[in-house]
Amino acid sequence: MPFSNVAERREQPPALAVSTVIFSLRDDERTGRKGLWLPLVRRTREPFRGQWALPGGPLGPRDSLLDAAANNLRDTTGLVPRYLEQLYAFGDLDRSPTRRMVSIVYWALVREDDPHDTATSVLVDDPNVAWFRADDPEVLGNLAFDHRQIIEYALWRLRNKVEYGSIAHRLLGERFTLAQVREVYEAVLDRALDPANFRRTLRSTPDIEETDEFLSGGKHRPPRLYRYTGSTTHPLESENIS
Amino acid sequence: MPFSNVAERREQPPALAVSTVIFSLRDDERTGRKGLWLPLVRRTREPFRGQWALPGGPLGPRDSLLDAAANNLRDTTGLVPRYLEQLYAFGDLDRSPTRRMVSIVYWALVREDDPHDTATSVLVDDPNVAWFRADDPEVLGNLAFDHRQIIEYALWRLRNKVEYGSIAHRLLGERFTLAQVREVYEAVLDRALDPANFRRTLRSTPDIEETDEFLSGGKHRPPRLYRYTGSTTHPLESENIS
Repeated sequence: MPFSNVAERREQPPALAVSTVIFSLRDDERTGRKGLWLPLVRRTREPFRGQWALPGGPLGPRDSLLDAAANNLRDTTGLVPRYLEQLYAFGDLDRSPTRRMVSIVYWALVREDDPHDTATSVLVDDPNVAWFRADDPEVLGNLAFDHRQIIEYALWRLRNKVEYGSIAHRLLGERFTLAQVREVYEAVLDRALDPANFRRTLRSTPDIEETDEFLSGGKHRPPRLYRYTGSTTHPLESENIS
Repeated sequence: MPFSNVAERREQPPALAVSTVIFSLRDDERTGRKGLWLPLVRRTREPFRGQWALPGGPLGPRDSLLDAAANNLRDTTGLVPRYLEQLYAFGDLDRSPTRRMVSIVYWALVREDDPHDTATSVLVDDPNVAWFRADDPEVLGNLAFDHRQIIEYALWRLRNKVEYGSIAHRLLGERFTLAQVREVYEAVLDRALDPANFRRTLRSTPDIEETDEFLSGGKHRPPRLYRYTGSTTHPLESENIS
């Protein structure tokens, strides 16, 4: 290491990393509802060797911010991300014990039916990658760096900043049923919601409109699909990666 | 310069800068309404020497992101910022012709009655600092780097992402009259709004509530002050600097 003492390291220019918070909905046996899960990566190097961390790493000189975030997601989940959004840049002075480090954090909401990247799907068996409940206090309490703060901020954003239509769009994609939106809200809020009341609220939301399509494949009368019509996303902020 | 050819520069780690978009409301003689203005700094070095740019610079090893943004604001306006918020991180590969540069951009909305920092107020007479209309096409068309794109994105956020209460809070502070909120909206939307309709809409906004206080100092019946009660800001995202 070229700068081995603390005083010298403090004079280095800040290093830049990109990390990605990847949420997914999974069945939760304890509650019978869906819960929010996320993949973490076990660190194989100091600092924080052996501890779990958000997928990420130094920004390469030829990677755009979005490419770096998409690579994080592809390498840890085998999924090709449909949609990635910038969450926040974290730059506190003492985030890393070894040198000043600024992390630009993206977040993604993936679904089990998202397309897989066949070239990287082998990596998903890596013992240093595992999925955890996003609000598991034992996991959150032992993360590397300030990654607990980052995940808690992402959860806060889901709970406080996102309107019905936009959260449905981000977690569920172009078309969704009202029951799917309720599952997302139950996972984010961690409580059961009354289906009839929730449908009523959702139908009165201006950014959601019904389509002429129905979800196929179920046993019962197929439920209607809805779509998000809001336009709160600037082209800069997100990319549909295809 | 240690890396003088393009191939070598491309292998350097990305450099990190912090820039700040500073909006203020000023009387616009052409329209008789308030308009949005912002200060720019003329570059005295390559690249883009002589062109106007957002206030900013490389992130120092001991500056937090917020400190760097507050210093930008203090140095170009002489104002002590009350409130700063992270806007977005811009990291396209070719933002700078000399080396890979990622800019974390903050934005601030200052008022003429914000407190001045007496130590730096002299700098406001610097001929390389000037205020411009935020939507002046001639200015926007000749900015350094991708600063045009950054300012246009900030304007888009004001126009599309911010609810009545929150925009009033950010531009006007803790207490404001309904007429002041209308002035902000007229500036952002660049058109006159019907005062009676606007008052009605605003009063039905859940995040704004009336106080028992009135604006003092006017010639007529003093207008009532309102306050913002929404809670869409996470402690991470902003700081009231005092």
